[in-house]
Amino acid sequence: MISFACDYSEGAIPEIMEYFNTTNLVNTPGYGEDEYCSKAAFFIKNKLKTDNVDVHFLVGGTQANLISISHVLRPHQGVIALSSGHISIHESGAIEATGHKVLETGFSKDGKLTIEMIEKAKENLLPPHTVEPKMVYISNPTEMGTLYTKKELIDISNLCKQNDYYLYIDGARLAMALTSEKNDILLEDYPKYADIFYIGGTKCGALFGEALVIVNANLKKDIKYAFKQKGALLAKGRLLGLQFERLFQTDLYEKYGVHANEMAKELKEGFIKNGISLGYDSYTNQQFPILSDELVKRLEKKYIFEFWGKVDEQHSIIRFVTSWATKKENIDEFLNDLKNLIENK
Amino acid sequence: MISFACDYSEGAIPEIMEYFNTTNLVNTPGYGEDEYCSKAAFFIKNKLKTDNVDVHFLVGGTQANLISISHVLRPHQGVIALSSGHISIHESGAIEATGHKVLETGFSKDGKLTIEMIEKAKENLLPPHTVEPKMVYISNPTEMGTLYTKKELIDISNLCKQNDYYLYIDGARLAMALTSEKNDILLEDYPKYADIFYIGGTKCGALFGEALVIVNANLKKDIKYAFKQKGALLAKGRLLGLQFERLFQTDLYEKYGVHANEMAKELKEGFIKNGISLGYDSYTNQQFPILSDELVKRLEKKYIFEFWGKVDEQHSIIRFVTSWATKKENIDEFLNDLKNLIENK
Amino acid sequence: MISFACDYSEGAIPEIMEYFNTTNLVNTPGYGEDEYCSKAAFFIKNKLKTDNVDVHFLVGGTQANLISISHVLRPHQGVIALSSGHISIHESGAIEATGHKVLETGFSKDGKLTIEMIEKAKENLLPPHTVEPKMVYISNPTEMGTLYTKKELIDISNLCKQNDYYLYIDGARLAMALTSEKNDILLEDYPKYADIFYIGGTKCGALFGEALVIVNANLKKDIKYAFKQKGALLAKGRLLGLQFERLFQTDLYEKYGVHANEMAKELKEGFIKNGISLGYDSYTNQQFPILSDELVKRLEKKYIFEFWGKVDEQHSIIRFVTSWATKKENIDEFLNDLKNLIENK
Amino acid sequence: MISFACDYSEGAIPEIMEYFNTTNLVNTPGYGEDEYCSKAAFFIKNKLKTDNVDVHFLVGGTQANLISISHVLRPHQGVIALSSGHISIHESGAIEATGHKVLETGFSKDGKLTIEMIEKAKENLLPPHTVEPKMVYISNPTEMGTLYTKKELIDISNLCKQNDYYLYIDGARLAMALTSEKNDILLEDYPKYADIFYIGGTKCGALFGEALVIVNANLKKDIKYAFKQKGALLAKGRLLGLQFERLFQTDLYEKYGVHANEMAKELKEGFIKNGISLGYDSYTNQQFPILSDELVKRLEKKYIFEFWGKVDEQHSIIRFVTSWATKKENIDEFLNDLKNLIENK
Repeated sequence: MISFACDYSEGAIPEIMEYFNTTNLVNTPGYGEDEYCSKAAFFIKNKLKTDNVDVHFLVGGTQANLISISHVLRPHQGVIALSSGHISIHESGAIEATGHKVLETGFSKDGKLTIEMIEKAKENLLPPHTVEPKMVYISNPTEMGTLYTKKELIDISNLCKQNDYYLYIDGARLAMALTSEKNDILLEDYPKYADIFYIGGTKCGALFGEALVIVNANLKKDIKYAFKQKGALLAKGRLLGLQFERLFQTDLYEKYGVHANEMAKELKEGFIKNGISLGYDSYTNQQFPILSDELVKRLEKKYIFEFWGKVDEQHSIIRFVTSWATKKENIDEFLNDLKNLIENK
Repeated sequence: MISFACDYSEGAIPEIMEYFNTTNLVNTPGYGEDEYCSKAAFFIKNKLKTDNVDVHFLVGGTQANLISISHVLRPHQGVIALSSGHISIHESGAIEATGHKVLETGFSKDGKLTIEMIEKAKENLLPPHTVEPKMVYISNPTEMGTLYTKKELIDISNLCKQNDYYLYIDGARLAMALTSEKNDILLEDYPKYADIFYIGGTKCGALFGEALVIVNANLKKDIKYAFKQKGALLAKGRLLGLQFERLFQTDLYEKYGVHANEMAKELKEGFIKNGISLGYDSYTNQQFPILSDELVKRLEKKYIFEFWGKVDEQHSIIRFVTSWATKKENIDEFLNDLKNLIENK
Repeated sequence: MISFACDYSEGAIPEIMEYFNTTNLVNTPGYGEDEYCSKAAFFIKNKLKTDNVDVHFLVGGTQANLISISHVLRPHQGVIALSSGHISIHESGAIEATGHKVLETGFSKDGKLTIEMIEKAKENLLPPHTVEPKMVYISNPTEMGTLYTKKELIDISNLCKQNDYYLYIDGARLAMALTSEKNDILLEDYPKYADIFYIGGTKCGALFGEALVIVNANLKKDIKYAFKQKGALLAKGRLLGLQFERLFQTDLYEKYGVHANEMAKELKEGFIKNGISLGYDSYTNQQFPILSDELVKRLEKKYIFEFWGKVDEQHSIIRFVTSWATKKENIDEFLNDLKNLIENK
Repeated sequence: MISFACDYSEGAIPEIMEYFNTTNLVNTPGYGEDEYCSKAAFFIKNKLKTDNVDVHFLVGGTQANLISISHVLRPHQGVIALSSGHISIHESGAIEATGHKVLETGFSKDGKLTIEMIEKAKENLLPPHTVEPKMVYISNPTEMGTLYTKKELIDISNLCKQNDYYLYIDGARLAMALTSEKNDILLEDYPKYADIFYIGGTKCGALFGEALVIVNANLKKDIKYAFKQKGALLAKGRLLGLQFERLFQTDLYEKYGVHANEMAKELKEGFIKNGISLGYDSYTNQQFPILSDELVKRLEKKYIFEFWGKVDEQHSIIRFVTSWATKKENIDEFLNDLKNLIENK
């Protein structure tokens, strides 16, 4: 079976595995107080072109989200997010479990949060009976693989500042955003517009790990307490440091993002060539063809992918995901099979 | 100023005030372990025509909601509710503060939760990434003063049973539901169809207080721990007992509900006579005329009421609330003024 | 049966009951935005001799404790309290349910927290692995009826300031502290030394209710959100306002405190006269005689009181509580019976 | 510098690193649904000699503790633990952050929880005002490196059953318990006496990871929801599976435990030979010599270890930790230096 199910199906890029091996017996302090974490933070700040941020490392994305949000908000405050946002539907109530409401805005066509939606969350507030909106959550790329433009990001950021909201960006797949042909937001732009964000590792070539970047000075204090309290302070914190050191000392982070995007682009072009329309116009590593259920049934015999949603009685949106580990030959084989299935049906 | 702002603007019905006075120096145990609470529970069970329920008393509605929901659900479970539900928007995140997600269904036209909405909450579940729906929350009357029919209640109840969901009914204004001309759900029906519900006192003639009725045997245990832990175990619990004893020993609960509904009906008929359309077709003590903003401005000089929502550039839905304490003469005066303002504009 | 079980066995002082009656039909806004609450706050500030405090009203003591503590602390912070403190043992984990650890200090002989105990809570801190102490909780009178001296209070307050801790005082029985013959802390001293405290009503003559006083300007914001979120925002907030207006417009609060203390003093002197030793040297409305279990058994036939703890195989500490409602004749009858039982055993 | 600071200073045992390397490009499902996790669970059940347990994998110990405890307890229930327990002092309030009180018992001489302490937690319960004790937490080895005897474990287990408490065992350093010369509890004994426990990996040769074993059938349901909600569901769950597969397919887990204990034993014997007394009589990989502060100062120039507590003005308990990675030559060098420093002082 060949899988396009997700971008966390394999281990890590070879450069990281090698670094694990060569440093395995080095003795370091625990809990992220080691030299590798320092170096990783240094290289990340370098790429962010700022020294005025704090960089910490966590194991996973839900961890990063729940810690960031519960660290930033006061008990009566909530976070505005799309109803399709990861924190809204795919974290088993992790944000609510920390006591905070996700102020869902409903769905948008392209998976992007709009200025209007953020504005709407302010309507009909009746303090102290209503939850106070205080944070905006977006992810880039979105759950649908789409990208915010720099202008959209700036508009959201400005709106947040006007409303005294914090802007948090979930960058689980940031490598693919940064390296998409349609992207116009540089890594160094993120600290300009977000108060806090994370640079995803797990889905971008690392074995695991996310780099949390705290920009807003008011939010920096006591974050390590939050890590520990939520069971997220990795004993061998070095493991996170050395991965991000490798990814950001040179441009490995971008390099593997490029590969994932290229593989996705081939898929996308293949779908289009075969007359298949796409649920979302994604230029990153997730593609969402609309396939007939019959075709899905045939493809499933050899390929693994994810059902995303029904379109009509006979068609569904299907999610295909590529990654740093996706092999060109598998893409070719898939597109060849696809073509044959369509021609010979 | 004459107020139609809410149904908690005055104290309590005279029969309750008198009972407070005559029992004031009686010495009782604390925390609801007194004779008045026992009697009140007895009379309520009598009216419910069942002995297989537990009856406890709480001070307020948000308290009843947050305690019931957090008592019933396991940490990863959520409660399905309309986006217009009290727990969704007007409790400052009280449910989330206990760790649980309110699974909002969006809005419905008449403020009633539908079978389709409940069904939809099951779509796209992806355990363990999604919150498990486990409870359905409705209120009767709804926030818009509308009523569920007995058939609708039975359908919801059956759907809950099929899905192994608990059904919880918020009866903050139950007296007005029970006594509405359109109502076909008897008090004794509630324990047949709900797993847990509360009979509102605060808005129905009591000084304060709600009677929580636990029907489902699995939910009865340890509820008093939940009361205490949430700061809701009233030291002089007797105060709750004696109010509900008075309300339910005879038919005072219904009697004052009838009055509130009658006052509301006069308002409603007055609006209609004056050519004013209504936002919701309410047959209980909340009425929602759609008024021009100019008319609102004039009425505000003498009357207090609540803005409910914009309809268009020049019109708004306004909420008028009557209660056990509403005076017929005030209704008459208002309708007279309304007529004059409309005729002489 | 004659009860010395607690100080919340009866209703309220007649002046409050009368005020409820005369204001019953007055129409006011809800949620504490009424004139009675304003007046009550005004009179309390008057007695506190400061205008720089915020005064709010809550229904009960556990409510006041859990709201104050969770409002003040950041998620990783804890509150230092005696292991005999109300929040440590008698609130069913209410503080922990808001996410915060009670940093218990162990027990002290007289129920008072010492400087040494507070200092000790700082030992062996290992941030971020340990909970950060950030608040000190004391009650005056203590659970054992004992009183802090003004010097002790100042010392604790200074120590808190040095450590950047907030000092919170639980004044559930403050009327009896203020009016004890041994007291040297004036009501106006409380805002000088505490950051936040509450003036108890429930046990001091009110039907129910506590007045929360926020002194520290940093803690004033958003407290009403906390009230609502915890189900503690009373719809008819006026009920709290008018009680505290009555208690503090004149000196009713002190007057009834004096009565409770006098009744307790008669009990205390009676115990001593009969050769009974006392578990704690209380000069307030709780008395703790050490009685033989045999004597207890006999007294129980006619009197209600509470077991407090075993002393040895044959003796226990028993708690006797007086209140604004305790009748002199009941004290006399009890002491007479006690004398007879001891003489004729 | 040579470090005896902790047992998480290096990476992982070579067999695990090799397995990471050889499997790196294998494509598997995420979230622990892969073949490696299945195999690891199989081998663990094999060693536990039972098939009636569920085995899941988590990244760290605090994570395992907070998930297990909050999964098992109802909101009003607490967990009994020593005041020296990891959950009591070194998890930054992680348990309280899930809403539950740690019912601290105070300290014991040897770091072991006693039957008497567990019994005492039941004293003075006053439902619903007191937290209901429902779980007992112990760790083996303890924080002081000491071991429970099989008899002690059975006694605690029986007492738990009598009281309807769950017994939870934190096995962060279980490899060293199992292989200690003083141990008489077999791995297969754990499911006989505990309801839920975890087998530590992080401190026992793994790169990271703990194996959670749920024995009690009532506790098995929905645990993966808890993982996800707490941000603990590792995307590449395979990483945990393959580590535990390696550790438990053969006897690597024990093998490296033996090494850590042997290194600790040499340290211990060295301390004794040099006339140094020990704070706790540990037969596992943590040793607690009582050293003069002057000696500490000299040793610190070359060695890293942890301050544990003051003994008197001039002496402290110091913690030395060995692990699978400790080199014999470093022990020898240390003991040689120690001897010289003592002889030449």
